[in-house]
Amino acid sequence: MNFAVNLVEILDYSKRKLAAASRGWRHAALLLALAVNIVNAGPDHPIPSESLSFVIGEPAPLLEQIESPPLGLPVMDIPKQNPVSEKKIALGRKLFFDRRLSFNGTLSCAMCHVPEQAFTQRELRTPVGLEGRFVKRNAPALYNVGYRRVLFFDGREHSLENQVWQPLLLHNEMANPSIGFVLSTISNAEDYQGLFETAFEQGLTVETLGMALASYQRGLVSGDSPFDRWYFGNEHALPEAARNGWQVFQNAGCATCHTIADDHAHFTDDQFYDTGIGYARSMKSESKPQPVRLAPGVSVVPTVSFETAKANDLGRYEATGRSEDRWLYRVPSLRNVALTAPYMHDGSFPDLDSVIAWYNDGGEPHAGLDVRIRPLNLTAEQVSDLLIFLESLTGSNIATLEADARSAQIGDP
Amino acid sequence: MNFAVNLVEILDYSKRKLAAASRGWRHAALLLALAVNIVNAGPDHPIPSESLSFVIGEPAPLLEQIESPPLGLPVMDIPKQNPVSEKKIALGRKLFFDRRLSFNGTLSCAMCHVPEQAFTQRELRTPVGLEGRFVKRNAPALYNVGYRRVLFFDGREHSLENQVWQPLLLHNEMANPSIGFVLSTISNAEDYQGLFETAFEQGLTVETLGMALASYQRGLVSGDSPFDRWYFGNEHALPEAARNGWQVFQNAGCATCHTIADDHAHFTDDQFYDTGIGYARSMKSESKPQPVRLAPGVSVVPTVSFETAKANDLGRYEATGRSEDRWLYRVPSLRNVALTAPYMHDGSFPDLDSVIAWYNDGGEPHAGLDVRIRPLNLTAEQVSDLLIFLESLTGSNIATLEADARSAQIGDP
Repeated sequence: MNFAVNLVEILDYSKRKLAAASRGWRHAALLLALAVNIVNAGPDHPIPSESLSFVIGEPAPLLEQIESPPLGLPVMDIPKQNPVSEKKIALGRKLFFDRRLSFNGTLSCAMCHVPEQAFTQRELRTPVGLEGRFVKRNAPALYNVGYRRVLFFDGREHSLENQVWQPLLLHNEMANPSIGFVLSTISNAEDYQGLFETAFEQGLTVETLGMALASYQRGLVSGDSPFDRWYFGNEHALPEAARNGWQVFQNAGCATCHTIADDHAHFTDDQFYDTGIGYARSMKSESKPQPVRLAPGVSVVPTVSFETAKANDLGRYEATGRSEDRWLYRVPSLRNVALTAPYMHDGSFPDLDSVIAWYNDGGEPHAGLDVRIRPLNLTAEQVSDLLIFLESLTGSNIATLEADARSAQIGDP
Repeated sequence: MNFAVNLVEILDYSKRKLAAASRGWRHAALLLALAVNIVNAGPDHPIPSESLSFVIGEPAPLLEQIESPPLGLPVMDIPKQNPVSEKKIALGRKLFFDRRLSFNGTLSCAMCHVPEQAFTQRELRTPVGLEGRFVKRNAPALYNVGYRRVLFFDGREHSLENQVWQPLLLHNEMANPSIGFVLSTISNAEDYQGLFETAFEQGLTVETLGMALASYQRGLVSGDSPFDRWYFGNEHALPEAARNGWQVFQNAGCATCHTIADDHAHFTDDQFYDTGIGYARSMKSESKPQPVRLAPGVSVVPTVSFETAKANDLGRYEATGRSEDRWLYRVPSLRNVALTAPYMHDGSFPDLDSVIAWYNDGGEPHAGLDVRIRPLNLTAEQVSDLLIFLESLTGSNIATLEADARSAQIGDP
């Protein structure tokens, strides 16, 4: 029965000012929408967000991590105009946790990218924006986002510096009415006095705000997983089942999109493919009421007349306008994938078993389906090995990044 | 029967690629929406947009105008980070007329801010966005926008440099999916090669795109009207009726918001007030079918079941979230006001007579109404004089600015 506690925690770690006070939350329909949106976070995915307000962490050497990345990751490509620095990272971390960056001061970046939940949201398929507004895609985990060449599931942005303005400005996310509104909020906040001027020659601008947030996010580097230790040197670092799972992964064709190089492994080629998920969600409506888990062990089937909030989602088409890009989505990295439930662009799969089952069944056949998606006929043992392999992709510094995140002050000063 | 021609002209001066080909235009409902949106542009407001594709104008010395403003205007305050230059102005002009700056390449800035129509739209109450999407506020005329301290009717932006990202990104305006999408469009266009690099040390960025567009818009300076010539020196420059109108203007209290200083006149104090228009439009629905003028001399009363596209509009509240800001709108300048029909934030008044009638009647009484709005009991002669005064605010360089605008290449290269 941890649902209410967790929900409150997502909404407000400081417990001083509840987002629930915003108008939208008073509506029963919204609460039901939220309930329907909740994924079946199983008992093996505990959500450790209950006592966040008592957690104060230690900052980690993020700059060092960027400059000397952990095993399995290459040197990061950083834009010439925005070299990383300690000051930019610290400023970006402060901004990332600042709820004043939303129009009504209720939402921070970290509330859809929760550090303890793998910098994503584990309770919800898709995030809830300002005043309960519907967001149609799953919040991506931010580990190693500094390596990505395309951002968002539709790839509509390619620099972290410019990317930040999407969640800041979108009406259904943080809903700021303009760039100037955000800049005014920060320049009027006493606790930011001098911080931008110290980190950037030009002070606070549309550009330096993005630069600071980008610098912090580049620090969220995570590698050195059991798989890395085995693949890049130590043959005893991985149990046999995981090694078999790696074979299954390659034989089934997974590694052709979730790619790995000789000296490093991103587990993504940063390209766009049609796996059938987008097509199925877009063209087929759910035919029967879905059971909804309100909390671990508590499920209900809604009986009221209620449509799950749903938006048509045409994938990469929305970023290009080219018809051949319909239902293509960016390949996510698989690093830390065991921690980043729920899965797929719409968060519709609650666990890795469901994901593997989807691919094993051959996806949703239709004209645009990627030719590599076909029934795999994996045995139960192969499925189990594949799962164990995926679990071996969890990096060694998850707790360090969480603690680092919690070194930032939460909420208003 | 010029409607069709004018509409096509608004949509595409080059006649090479019609916005009408975008999907939304095929729907009858949209065409009707457009029709309902059309204002009654009277015979004294001819719309000279028929033969635009044959017009090629001469560039005007905009930089000089900015540095030595015409009679009635002060020296412009220009951000230190973005000094004006010929190169920036030329680049900004090119961008302003470039339809590739919208998601599907159909809309340029100039298509809602038409040079021949006082850099606003005279045919429509409110502009039509990408694929026929509804925009809820009237397109402001851009003359002297470089002097404004707040932008948009709700004042949600305050620098021209950042302002440009609103129309570029809003889904119902130019609908670009991200900042990066716009920057890619420009950096992939051969005809922009080297232009940003020559105008700006840092090349093309989120900041310099705004800087170029801002520089061109700062050049749209217009003063030296008959009123200016009289008020700032030549006592014979204004007929008696206009001078009487100026007295009426002051006595009626108009000049307390549409302010004028000792040595210059902006005819706005850049503040926000409640004139009752916003309240009336928001709280009262139109009770009977409105006649719609399809073209000069051709009116119809729609008989189909059809609701005019309408969005609630809470004015400055939308930029601040403060309840006391509901239905407050920024005071527009009155310079060139005789050319900028239709009027008010929603374009609901087709001519200046309607505007004067609204104020003469005391607006829409309600709790928040500005205390200065009250029945004025103006005589017919006073109304006539007031109108003649307003018509004396037209600057001397309108044709020059139009010709300058038409020195830019229109459409794709």
